[in-house]
Amino acid sequence: MTKYLHTMIRVSDPAATIRFFELIGLKEIRRYDNEKDRFSLIFLAALGDEGIAEVELTHNWDESGYTGGRNMGHLAFRVDDIYATCAALMAAGVTINRPPRDGHMAFVKTPDGISIELLQDGSLPPQEPWASMENTGSW
Amino acid sequence: MTKYLHTMIRVSDPAATIRFFELIGLKEIRRYDNEKDRFSLIFLAALGDEGIAEVELTHNWDESGYTGGRNMGHLAFRVDDIYATCAALMAAGVTINRPPRDGHMAFVKTPDGISIELLQDGSLPPQEPWASMENTGSW
Repeated sequence: MTKYLHTMIRVSDPAATIRFFELIGLKEIRRYDNEKDRFSLIFLAALGDEGIAEVELTHNWDESGYTGGRNMGHLAFRVDDIYATCAALMAAGVTINRPPRDGHMAFVKTPDGISIELLQDGSLPPQEPWASMENTGSW
Repeated sequence: MTKYLHTMIRVSDPAATIRFFELIGLKEIRRYDNEKDRFSLIFLAALGDEGIAEVELTHNWDESGYTGGRNMGHLAFRVDDIYATCAALMAAGVTINRPPRDGHMAFVKTPDGISIELLQDGSLPPQEPWASMENTGSW
């Protein structure tokens, strides 16, 4: 079953953004800090929305000053069969910007260029044509 | 209780966008067409996500060619008391771009400029300072 997961936005100042969302009634529910690649992922949700509808903040430690455009990240959806979904999208003429080489994650874009993340529930064994398909463009 | 409602994105070609989302597993669940002001609002959701986590497509009939920036709309949250939430935001230095003059709807922005819609569950009687507060900027 396809299921909404989160909307991701890029943030320059995570503390300021978390404070902002706390004022609306969301809380940090989990966080992943990657010192090597210098980024953090921070998930926020309203009480009861944990695992149902979350906001993901992406903080690239060495970036700042986002304005309209790259401040918007993506909408993410869990799908039943990521290969079947990507095959259907390709058949409809959609570019698979980030093919599901790992059987788990893919990125595509809406007709207006909004990035959409597709996530397999678990992961499927690597499979062609996906396993050897290169990335295309950005997402 | 604060609760996630939807992420809104602007679309140039609603039929193309709906087809795109259908390929991922979402369906149109309701639609509002306004002939006078020439726009449509189309709500999509995965099965079981209706009323829980939706995507809203805004189609302004006379606009097209969105690229990064204005293609991203807003994230929307239902709140318990829109006046209390806006007061807390203002106290924290956040500009209330669209004050809740009607006791029902307000818009603010995250520190990186992502628009956030606040919606009162029902509506409160008009109340100062909100009732006479002007809009500020865009959202």
